[in-house]
This record gives sequence, structure tokens and C-alpha cells, in this order.
Amino acid sequence: MFSNTSEIIEILGTIAFAISGTFSAMQRKLDVFGVLIIAFVTSVGGGTIRDMLIGDTPVAWMRDVQVCLVILVTSVAAIIFKTYIRKLKVTLFLFDSLGLGLFTVVGLQKGINVGLNPGICIALGTITGCFGGIIRDILLNTIPLIFRREIYATVCIFGGAVYLLLLRFQVNTDISKFMVIAIIVATRIIVVQKQLSFPRMRY
Amino acid sequence: MFSNTSEIIEILGTIAFAISGTFSAMQRKLDVFGVLIIAFVTSVGGGTIRDMLIGDTPVAWMRDVQVCLVILVTSVAAIIFKTYIRKLKVTLFLFDSLGLGLFTVVGLQKGINVGLNPGICIALGTITGCFGGIIRDILLNTIPLIFRREIYATVCIFGGAVYLLLLRFQVNTDISKFMVIAIIVATRIIVVQKQLSFPRMRY
Amino acid sequence: MFSNTSEIIEILGTIAFAISGTFSAMQRKLDVFGVLIIAFVTSVGGGTIRDMLIGDTPVAWMRDVQVCLVILVTSVAAIIFKTYIRKLKVTLFLFDSLGLGLFTVVGLQKGINVGLNPGICIALGTITGCFGGIIRDILLNTIPLIFRREIYATVCIFGGAVYLLLLRFQVNTDISKFMVIAIIVATRIIVVQKQLSFPRMRY
Repeated sequence: MFSNTSEIIEILGTIAFAISGTFSAMQRKLDVFGVLIIAFVTSVGGGTIRDMLIGDTPVAWMRDVQVCLVILVTSVAAIIFKTYIRKLKVTLFLFDSLGLGLFTVVGLQKGINVGLNPGICIALGTITGCFGGIIRDILLNTIPLIFRREIYATVCIFGGAVYLLLLRFQVNTDISKFMVIAIIVATRIIVVQKQLSFPRMRY
Repeated sequence: MFSNTSEIIEILGTIAFAISGTFSAMQRKLDVFGVLIIAFVTSVGGGTIRDMLIGDTPVAWMRDVQVCLVILVTSVAAIIFKTYIRKLKVTLFLFDSLGLGLFTVVGLQKGINVGLNPGICIALGTITGCFGGIIRDILLNTIPLIFRREIYATVCIFGGAVYLLLLRFQVNTDISKFMVIAIIVATRIIVVQKQLSFPRMRY
Repeated sequence: MFSNTSEIIEILGTIAFAISGTFSAMQRKLDVFGVLIIAFVTSVGGGTIRDMLIGDTPVAWMRDVQVCLVILVTSVAAIIFKTYIRKLKVTLFLFDSLGLGLFTVVGLQKGINVGLNPGICIALGTITGCFGGIIRDILLNTIPLIFRREIYATVCIFGGAVYLLLLRFQVNTDISKFMVIAIIVATRIIVVQKQLSFPRMRY
């Protein structure tokens, strides 16, 4: 039915982050338009930074209006169905983690396609996964989630390393992608449920 | 007398935003040098992001020292004539809105030249118009103007849509530019005078 | 022994800024992983912005894993030997200033190689030297050092002007680099020791 797994992963990640951006902005009481901008930035931020770093310009969303429409529709839907979705707070968290997993894999694969060093591919995946949220938090003037106590970016790095290992052992690309997304989402859930964090060091 | 309308629009926008940056920085009591940096960033910020997004590098101001000189002279003049200009607070607001209108048109036209989709052109115009101010506010550690209650970016999007419509109906490019700049400036004035904002929603 | 002065300068600057980033992040009580990210961003931030502005992509650190390893090792070493290094607070400040001088020269030379206008080369040097620290401060949510009262970016601009003058008078490139680094470091020391700042103006 679908011609391209990567495309599906990208659209799903876009939807997941558009929802997370919409809700963050609503919590800060922005007007409707501010909410839409934050949803957009959260969704395309990681991929934009990724494309500017590797010089793949115009950046992805500029070549694909579809992405912009998906974000618009998702964000408006999230605003409308807010009461319903809010009750499903767990669902929202799952979407956010899913976005992180999906975009990390997109970034990883793009790094591999460009022929970057494995370590750099992991960095590119992590940047693609995390930077939308970082920009969102900077714009909303809060300390980025990534720098609070909770384990966040490390999950992407771990997932990236697993992905490269799977490919090295000749596992099918689509299966590897699916496994890594599952690992990232599962790890995030465990981290948040058990409130895991790196040991506070006495610097 | 002038060979190129686009060039004039760009220089006028540069001057307008250099003045707005200078005054914002003086309000935060930065030293002279900090004021010059903020004036520079406010002036070239939008165009720099625009050029990095579409991959037109080195970015505009790096290929044109004239722009840097214009900012320097404008900012120093604004510092010197501050008492005089401050009394003309309305004039300053007009310059700021004029900058927004001018740069939005520059960004729109650049998007069209590169052959981007109409919706993306509007986004590029909005980014060119608004991002200098966003970066200025982030550096001065205040919540960006764009996310406060006042209608701001929406004005650029509205102006951008009008511009594309005018071109579609074969209106002369220079006349279209002039009309859109006038529309953006006028809308901003009305918005601020009547303290219009999007209805606060109960999220 | 060394084939390339530029390379040595770049590695030394990387080390210097990795140490400064590590210590800033430890002061804000980030966990180990947050500390590593801040060290990385502080170290590569200036060069990344520089490369994106001139369109030399993929940006430098993506083409050179060595840089990432140097940052990792330096940051871990700084965390381990923190007690020892902290006593040598003066040494740390020297490293920070050394980083500023080293990276300014790297940026200047890159601008010259690309054939940019002299004034723009000075701007590029200043951006390369200062932006790692600016991004670090934005992420840690403090007002960037560059905008506090202390003279900072001006030192880079001054050093850049001297560098171009030396080259104009046909002084050997390596000697010029060494002199400019020495000038920037020395000026920073004098500025901080004598608590020099631009006169506070009554705006």
C-alpha cells in the first residue's frame, strides 16, 4: 500500500511533534496563531537544523508543502479535541516519545545516505530527534527539557548505536528502523515511569 | 534615478530594523558595543536565516559590505539623535512596521525567484520579516514580541497572500510590492492603535 | 613535527572551549550527559555557525570525528580533574581567552580563503570566536557573557583588524597568527584584571 517506509516514518513523526508543540504552547496561554507557529517549529525544527548542518538546502519542509499542511491540520485538530486528548495524557506522552524515535531514525538514515562517519550519524539522528523540542523550549523561554534531570538525548544516542549495529549485522533496514523506534519509545517510557536519571554528581 | 526597486526596499528595511534594534538594546542598558551588535543582528537576522534555509550562501550581508556600513551609520546616528527620535515615538513605531513590510516583500520575492511553492514563499517572507526581531528578543532574554498577545506574524502572512494574489492577476511587480508594504504597515498601525489581538481561548 | 599550523590552532581552541563549557555546565548542576553536550556545543558552536553562514557544508565537525573525540576526552578529563583545575582558576580563564584568540584567527583565515571582504572577514572571525559561548549561555538560560558589561567581542574585532594589517604588510602568516592570538589573550587579561568596560552612557 505504501511505497516508502521513510516517508511514513517522517509523516508520523511530524504529527507526533505537532501535537506536542500545540500542547506546550497552549499551556503557556499563547493565542491561536502563536500555538500554530510553535507546533510548526517543534515539528520541523530538528530536520531544519539537520539539513542546514549537512547543506541539504532548501531544507526539507520548503520542498514539501504536504508537511506544512499535515502540521496545520494536526495542530487545529489537537486544539479542537483538546479535552478528549488531555484525558489521554499517557497517549500524548507516547506520541512525543514516538516522535523522538521516528525522527532519530530519519536523521540516522539521512546521515548514512550522505556517507557520514557512524559516530556523526548518531549525532545527526540525535539532533534531528531532539532539536525541535529544544527550539520550542527556547522560544517559550523555559529551560530545555533536554537539560533537565530526565534522561532524554541519551536515549537517542543509545538507539542510534543499536541501529548501526543492526545494519552491520545485515538486518533488514525496515525491520531495524522499527526495532530502534520501539527501543527508543520503550526506554523513554521506562525512564519516565521509574523516574530514572543519571546519578547527581558532586562536582 | 534608482536602477533597482528591490535594492532600495532592502536598504530601507535595513535602516528601519537597525533603528529598532538600537532602541531595544539601549532600553536594556547595554554598552555602546552591545547596542551595535544588537542593531546588526536585528537588521540582518531575518535575511540570514532565510539564506541559510534556502542555501543561498555566503548569506546576503557577507557579500555586501554596504549593508554593514548602513547599519553602523544608522545605529550611531540613532544613538546620537536619541532624544530627538524618542519624542517621535510614533515615527519609530512606523519605522519598525515599515521594516516588517519591506523585509517581508524581500523574502517573498526571493522565494518566488528560487521557484518555491506559493505557501512556502509566504512562510519565507514571514521568516525574513520577523526573525530579526525574534533573535533580538532571545539575545536580550525577553519573550519574543511575536509570542506576546499582539498580532504580529499574521500581518506578514496576510500581506504575503495579497502579494501572490496581485501577481496572479498580473499587477505590476513594483506596484504590488508598494501595495503590500502599505498594507502591512497600515494593518500594524490599526492593530496597535485598537489593541487588537486574537480572542483569548479557554484551552 | 606538525604539518599544519591551522590544524594545531583549531585543536587547541577546541580543547580550551570544551573545558570552559564543561565548567559552565557543572556550575549549573547538569548531569554528566548534559555537561558533555554543553562542552560539545561550546566547542563547535562558533565554527558551525561560521560554516553555515558561508555555506561550507557539511559543517567542519561532521567531516572530522577527531574533533568529537578531542571534546569527549577533554570534557571527561575536566570533570575528573575538576578539583585540581578549579584551584587553577586563573589557568581556566587563560584557556577560555586562548580559545577566543585561537578561534578568531581560524575564522579570519577561513574568510580570507573564501575571498570575503576584509570587514566581513573580521566579522567572521568574531563570530567564530564568540558564538560557541553565546549558544552555551542561551542554552543555560543566562544572559550571554558577550552582552554583559565586560569588553568581549570588541577584543576579537581589534585582533582581527591587527591580523589584516599584519598580512597587508607581508608579515609571515604563522607569525601573524601567533601575534594576534597573543594580543587577544593579553587584552582579555588586562580587561578582566582592570575591570575595564565601555563607559556607561546615559541613553
